[in-house]
Amino acid sequence: MDTIGAIAADWDSAAALTRNIGDLIGTAAFAISGALLAIRRDFDIVGALTLAAMTACGGGVIRDLIIGETPPTAFVDLRYLTVAVISALVVFVWSPPARLLGRPLDLADALGLGAFCVTGTVTAAEHGLGLASSALLGVVTAVGGGVIRDVLAQRTPSVLRPDQEIYAIPALFGALLTAILIEYGWYGTIVGGCVAAAVFLFRVLALRYRWRAPQARGRRRQ
Amino acid sequence: MDTIGAIAADWDSAAALTRNIGDLIGTAAFAISGALLAIRRDFDIVGALTLAAMTACGGGVIRDLIIGETPPTAFVDLRYLTVAVISALVVFVWSPPARLLGRPLDLADALGLGAFCVTGTVTAAEHGLGLASSALLGVVTAVGGGVIRDVLAQRTPSVLRPDQEIYAIPALFGALLTAILIEYGWYGTIVGGCVAAAVFLFRVLALRYRWRAPQARGRRRQ
Amino acid sequence: MDTIGAIAADWDSAAALTRNIGDLIGTAAFAISGALLAIRRDFDIVGALTLAAMTACGGGVIRDLIIGETPPTAFVDLRYLTVAVISALVVFVWSPPARLLGRPLDLADALGLGAFCVTGTVTAAEHGLGLASSALLGVVTAVGGGVIRDVLAQRTPSVLRPDQEIYAIPALFGALLTAILIEYGWYGTIVGGCVAAAVFLFRVLALRYRWRAPQARGRRRQ
Repeated sequence: MDTIGAIAADWDSAAALTRNIGDLIGTAAFAISGALLAIRRDFDIVGALTLAAMTACGGGVIRDLIIGETPPTAFVDLRYLTVAVISALVVFVWSPPARLLGRPLDLADALGLGAFCVTGTVTAAEHGLGLASSALLGVVTAVGGGVIRDVLAQRTPSVLRPDQEIYAIPALFGALLTAILIEYGWYGTIVGGCVAAAVFLFRVLALRYRWRAPQARGRRRQ
Repeated sequence: MDTIGAIAADWDSAAALTRNIGDLIGTAAFAISGALLAIRRDFDIVGALTLAAMTACGGGVIRDLIIGETPPTAFVDLRYLTVAVISALVVFVWSPPARLLGRPLDLADALGLGAFCVTGTVTAAEHGLGLASSALLGVVTAVGGGVIRDVLAQRTPSVLRPDQEIYAIPALFGALLTAILIEYGWYGTIVGGCVAAAVFLFRVLALRYRWRAPQARGRRRQ
Repeated sequence: MDTIGAIAADWDSAAALTRNIGDLIGTAAFAISGALLAIRRDFDIVGALTLAAMTACGGGVIRDLIIGETPPTAFVDLRYLTVAVISALVVFVWSPPARLLGRPLDLADALGLGAFCVTGTVTAAEHGLGLASSALLGVVTAVGGGVIRDVLAQRTPSVLRPDQEIYAIPALFGALLTAILIEYGWYGTIVGGCVAAAVFLFRVLALRYRWRAPQARGRRRQ
């Protein structure tokens, strides 16, 4: 009996499954965040779909380029782009009033952050990267799409903004936790989903209770 | 007689020729657009050449990184950079008056858009990507340089701007048409040139007659 | 006696040593420049560390993606990220007063520019790129981190700014000199250090004596 092989295969399929589902959820969530920011900026439908697609697929494309997986999944498996465009289209047609734009944007962004910091770390581990490197790539995957969105829409990236609640910390926490769980062989579909949910909750609580990181000495809050 | 082989070789040389010519035209056009924007922003000559080179080569570098062609052509075949620098230098020395900056910038940009959406799609197809993936990469190649130019010069990318006529639609149309022509074996040097010209015309007509995409409900035009 | 092999091995170890030391110095310098800009922008500690890490590792990641070295060194060898984070942390805790932010930022940036234009060129040459391509990649490595820093912090990149002293010229000078020295077999640890120091000095003198490149005809200085 090849127990190790069976476990490895199990892990593989479990990991691949979580990764696929997680990536699709994260893609939809980031696409929605991109579409909401586009509406807030009064972009037209083409601009909104473009920004949504770049936000949704940007993190994954950066991740794939970094691990040398070319062409990146987003260019080969067009489900991701389809999910992104449909999600953005629904938001655009629904066209929420201005006072509703802020909170859903933050929630969608938090959901994408949670999903991608887990799947990014898993993908990196599948490619043989070590614990710390996998976690680092998980953070880059989670944060990348939002950075692209904010740079294209000309606002300071959420991950840097001083008037913003902590953003990178939940992603780092989720990516490190995922990497450790993989290292010890405790990772699975449900576990991965729980970590993503914890990151989402962490970010939402940070928004709710205004958890912020300290600024440099002698600088006041903005 | 190896007809299929001969056709394939024919297609190869025709495709390679169009690609080379098209890439050089697109490079010169985008370099000019970068130099014009640099002059408008009062950049000095080094800034103008740098912005021109990044605009001209940016889309192709992104394309090559995505299909895993490293180092990207722009870093190996220095004709592209030379063409970009010379084009930008001519514009800089000529130094057009302010009232002439807008229209030539749009025209040069449209020319680059037409050339690159065709050559980007052809390059992707040569690397074995499918129809939809090739068209997608064609759009990214066509739009990429302009996005880099606009982000570096701190203006909202043309592809997203709400006060702008349609930009991504002509590129998507040209890339899809090219991909379909390749799929059915109808692609050739002249056909490719015609598609690029059609995209250029499409974009110029959109500018002339102010064809715009709809914005979200309840948002007025800016 | 295999003289050529011995020389090659010698060159290899000397090059690798300079490259490692130079990369670490450049990483620390760019991290400091990122942290200083973050403090000036009133970013919190997480934003400052993130901006510092992206500035410090950005140029090298772009370089590695372009030469097809995946995953990029910064994701595998975590010394670079560690050096970046520690350097940024020291700056953040020290928290210099506002009037001191400008000059150290320029000096740290100049130091990073000098170190990275040499090591970027050496890395490219080690990967078999030709003289001009290696120099080009050296410039991209040197300039890349600063461009990422400035785009993320929403200011026009130093390499483009018209109100700025020459920036790309020292980098181009250093990269070309390094590439020529490698071509003729005169490159070594000490020589590389001297070139980096010369680039640093060149940039600092440009800042001190306000050496600027010409703007387009009929445009006045800003």
